[in-house]
Amino acid sequence: MLDDYLNWERYLITSEVDLPEEYQYQGRLYRLAPADRLYIAGMGGSGVVGDLIRDLSFVWGWPFEAVVVKDYFFRGGDGLMLAVSYSGNTVETITAAAAALRRGMPVIAITTGGKLAEMGIPTIKVPKASAPRAALPQMLTAALWTLRKIYGVNFDTPSSLPYDERLADRLVKTLGARPTIVAPVSMQGLAYRVKNEANENAKLDPSVEVLPEAHHNWIEGASGPIMAMTSPDIPAEHRTRVRLTVDLLSGEVFEVPMTVGGILTFLKHVGIATVKIALARGIDPLKTPRIDELKRRLP
Amino acid sequence: MLDDYLNWERYLITSEVDLPEEYQYQGRLYRLAPADRLYIAGMGGSGVVGDLIRDLSFVWGWPFEAVVVKDYFFRGGDGLMLAVSYSGNTVETITAAAAALRRGMPVIAITTGGKLAEMGIPTIKVPKASAPRAALPQMLTAALWTLRKIYGVNFDTPSSLPYDERLADRLVKTLGARPTIVAPVSMQGLAYRVKNEANENAKLDPSVEVLPEAHHNWIEGASGPIMAMTSPDIPAEHRTRVRLTVDLLSGEVFEVPMTVGGILTFLKHVGIATVKIALARGIDPLKTPRIDELKRRLP
Repeated sequence: MLDDYLNWERYLITSEVDLPEEYQYQGRLYRLAPADRLYIAGMGGSGVVGDLIRDLSFVWGWPFEAVVVKDYFFRGGDGLMLAVSYSGNTVETITAAAAALRRGMPVIAITTGGKLAEMGIPTIKVPKASAPRAALPQMLTAALWTLRKIYGVNFDTPSSLPYDERLADRLVKTLGARPTIVAPVSMQGLAYRVKNEANENAKLDPSVEVLPEAHHNWIEGASGPIMAMTSPDIPAEHRTRVRLTVDLLSGEVFEVPMTVGGILTFLKHVGIATVKIALARGIDPLKTPRIDELKRRLP
Repeated sequence: MLDDYLNWERYLITSEVDLPEEYQYQGRLYRLAPADRLYIAGMGGSGVVGDLIRDLSFVWGWPFEAVVVKDYFFRGGDGLMLAVSYSGNTVETITAAAAALRRGMPVIAITTGGKLAEMGIPTIKVPKASAPRAALPQMLTAALWTLRKIYGVNFDTPSSLPYDERLADRLVKTLGARPTIVAPVSMQGLAYRVKNEANENAKLDPSVEVLPEAHHNWIEGASGPIMAMTSPDIPAEHRTRVRLTVDLLSGEVFEVPMTVGGILTFLKHVGIATVKIALARGIDPLKTPRIDELKRRLP
């Protein structure tokens, strides 16, 4: 798994994806045209693609409202949906995608295979990795190239995600202390990914608090260490909220460029750090026995 | 403050609100017609109105997609906005409402006064309470009657919110143990309100995890006590996810009817319980010194 993270650049998709302008599904015509609302359905390590697209679209002013769907149920009105499922068999994502199609909404799948790849809708197939969460580079860049094709959005296409041992060590220390991860709305997806990696790899349970909302409630009860996230690329109002939090309560601040390269480089270090924490705790970072058990027990 | 919670029924709005069909704002015409998307802007104790409307609209299938806005920035495309601010002076809410108006989106204000009440947009004025979070009955029911007027949605109009000492005691015990609050998407707003009351009144910092997403990451790192929330009114898929969580990790389960009366009765007990926890800790539940300090430090 460490190898996966260390070699993340290999999985970056660096050229255009192939998509039709329209397609038929169960006798109905779906057009892949720019829509005001982009729904991104997906759970866990696949769902984070939606979270990060929401962050990126906020920071760079992309011409759609990104709405993340992490449920079986989908009741959105009009728009376009990306359905992201590493395995292609995530029941929530498949159910939400089917609901969108029934409402006449075009859906594009991003997956390694499974049922989603067999639905007969446009599908971007991505290569496998040691685990869904380790396949973020290919899932995220597949989604981004899809958005380039449909909306013409621009983004940086990193060719390397340089590793910095000191950053990894700092993350080991900070996340190992079980912090509250504090981030502004514009970096919310990134913060949740950090939490999720701590959950799945290190088997820890840090929580996330989002600014400015957290200044209206959490701050009053806050205790324990803080991992604060900020960026030169976010609005001044958000940077100020992060700074005020740390001024008042102190905390470790991580500054992340909100570019594709900046996000993936940081998350590569988070992946490596959470694997290191697991190994230091004598835990297997790859295995997720509770998630497996839940899947067995689901009716 | 205890008095406020104990007498919440007094603040329930029990009859229709007065709204024009259209209005002029800065020379532009805005029509208050049903829209597919309802944005509810608001922070903290006012913002929870949006969270609860999202829960209610999910459970009862109301004819709009409820989108909560807890930020300065608003980039939604088309729809209708409720701007909820107890004081009427919340900078994030006023900024978001102004952005919506600039985009031609009709905005309705719910407030006790302040700048929001002076903007010249349709405004539902609600009575004051000891603190914004204690004014939930009037803010929520004002919003609901607004939705009845515009969308014709139906909801129960409770006349009493009966107090049950045993439920309050159980909540004192459960929340005092600093649990992770686990709830399905359909009860997410309710769960966040419980967290926020623990933050502001009891000065504790429990976290919230939302199902099914939490089954894809949090469950693997979960440690410590769990407060699980379920309801007879939510989909079977959501109830199952809550049950599986408790089967696997154990936890205190709270069953809440997702009616207006059920939600407010439960939250009245949460309010009272978090005040009791504060008093037992020798803390003033009403005062929020860190929030006040942040407001002073904001540029």
